[in-house]
Amino acid sequence: MIKTRITDLFNIKHPIIQAGMVWCSGWELASAVSNAGGLGIIGSGSMYPEILNIHLKKCKKATRNNFAVNIPLLYPNVSEHMDLVIKHKVPIVFTSAGNPSIWTQKLKNHGIIVVHVVSNLKFAFKSRDAGVDAIVAEGFEAGGHNGLDENTTFCLLPLLKKHIDIPLIAAGGIGSGETMLAAMSLGAEGVQIGSRFVLSNESSAHINFKQEILKAKDGDTILTLKELTPVRLIKNKFFKELEMAYLEKRSVLDLKQILGKGRAKKGMFEGDVDFGELEIGQISSYLDVIKSAKEIIEEIISDFYKTRDKLNEY
Amino acid sequence: MIKTRITDLFNIKHPIIQAGMVWCSGWELASAVSNAGGLGIIGSGSMYPEILNIHLKKCKKATRNNFAVNIPLLYPNVSEHMDLVIKHKVPIVFTSAGNPSIWTQKLKNHGIIVVHVVSNLKFAFKSRDAGVDAIVAEGFEAGGHNGLDENTTFCLLPLLKKHIDIPLIAAGGIGSGETMLAAMSLGAEGVQIGSRFVLSNESSAHINFKQEILKAKDGDTILTLKELTPVRLIKNKFFKELEMAYLEKRSVLDLKQILGKGRAKKGMFEGDVDFGELEIGQISSYLDVIKSAKEIIEEIISDFYKTRDKLNEY
Repeated sequence: MIKTRITDLFNIKHPIIQAGMVWCSGWELASAVSNAGGLGIIGSGSMYPEILNIHLKKCKKATRNNFAVNIPLLYPNVSEHMDLVIKHKVPIVFTSAGNPSIWTQKLKNHGIIVVHVVSNLKFAFKSRDAGVDAIVAEGFEAGGHNGLDENTTFCLLPLLKKHIDIPLIAAGGIGSGETMLAAMSLGAEGVQIGSRFVLSNESSAHINFKQEILKAKDGDTILTLKELTPVRLIKNKFFKELEMAYLEKRSVLDLKQILGKGRAKKGMFEGDVDFGELEIGQISSYLDVIKSAKEIIEEIISDFYKTRDKLNEY
Repeated sequence: MIKTRITDLFNIKHPIIQAGMVWCSGWELASAVSNAGGLGIIGSGSMYPEILNIHLKKCKKATRNNFAVNIPLLYPNVSEHMDLVIKHKVPIVFTSAGNPSIWTQKLKNHGIIVVHVVSNLKFAFKSRDAGVDAIVAEGFEAGGHNGLDENTTFCLLPLLKKHIDIPLIAAGGIGSGETMLAAMSLGAEGVQIGSRFVLSNESSAHINFKQEILKAKDGDTILTLKELTPVRLIKNKFFKELEMAYLEKRSVLDLKQILGKGRAKKGMFEGDVDFGELEIGQISSYLDVIKSAKEIIEEIISDFYKTRDKLNEY
């Protein structure tokens, strides 16, 4: 048992948090992770309030353990989503992509544990000052929407650890026991894992998307669309369109039009791997097998100990 | 004592390699690192052959321990540099920025240990096939010239470890005992450290440049000039000129003209921190003190053990 301030805070067995991800992490994945001793998160960023309501009901039925909801603060339905997590007495909320000072105290007044995702030191200070219980330090290598700063997990974590006392959760580049141990060497007390759990039986990612992740090599993902909302995705035909627009020095409005609406759903949920948006982390180049959430967690914990033993031999 | 295949290969006490860096790592730094139990490297990329010759003579006088020379393979004087390291019986050569198959066997025929620096899996395979003795896996966060791939240390190392059996040295983001332990969790058997050693008494970096590194915050470095030779540097006034050129969508030729000749020397060696080129890694945001090379190595080793003990408490 790896006991840290994060396992205490969330009342979980393993300091493994499954990232809330659009189109990939509904009640089925979140409850499977929580049942296996980690913290499952429902990614509400791709859900209308009525859909989130259904996922919350199902998740509560599927696990008696703690789970969380991720709410991107720039989401148009953020207020309804907040009402829902309060109504359903969700014990933990991860907020991201926005200002932590707006919602943190309101959620805490309802007894909810609040965690905010940051990609630089400035927002880590803002989160601390807003009173969050823990911080996710998300590195440049993470999939999906990300900061503009390009701070990598290797550089971001030690910097935050040096300046901030509240518990840190590492995100970006973590998909194995070795990477979990590395993150904890850098000062994290828990890890948030995305890409690895997209490749689980329980994730709602389309099988075509999962196959693309299995095939991905290093260099196949890129952090792009920095002019709109920066996002790390697989360089598919849709990205080639974007790339051409960049080469032609087209305007931000043109980029917006090329992106259009519903690209992420099209790619990740409906399986159009050519023209959909395929949000995934850089660690995808390392991943090569689909397993159950339980098997993933067991493997990570087992490899964590094996790697620690190896380090002790030095 | 941390004993790995890298300490065996180089016959050194600690698996700490000081990166060969233009304008910062001459004989004084290299010999200080080697005398302190690490492997010092003379960065020949900023030296004419007659200058390298002087540094080799002085380094051999200043230390009886092994040291190395870094030779960027795209350097115009590469052939004279190779002749010099052979003539001086330099025991170890690190090659970078080029094709490892051209020089590896020639050097090995003279009994020289050869290490090649890569930033992706494809070049790691090429290096292995060329017969190198070890590989430096250099992540996106590293300072100075770097690959286009943007693979971070966190993602690059486990990928190479998974596919390649020869010893790996991690580079990029390492500047402390914690980061060294993290790199070794990811599969490295040694670490190559640049920025931290620029902030040593013995580095030939201008004091103005050192002061800029001490002041640097996260987000203050960027990997830029990807159209020419990608380089990570501090966003100073010179970079603002580049940024303006990018905003104005100027041509590659214009970028070349803005860069001009001798920018790195101007910034890093002569101390013009506004209009010189200041090549440094992302970990500079973490660094806050200038010490001797010996003190730096002792601190890293001590913190390595402290952090390992802490991990063992989990």
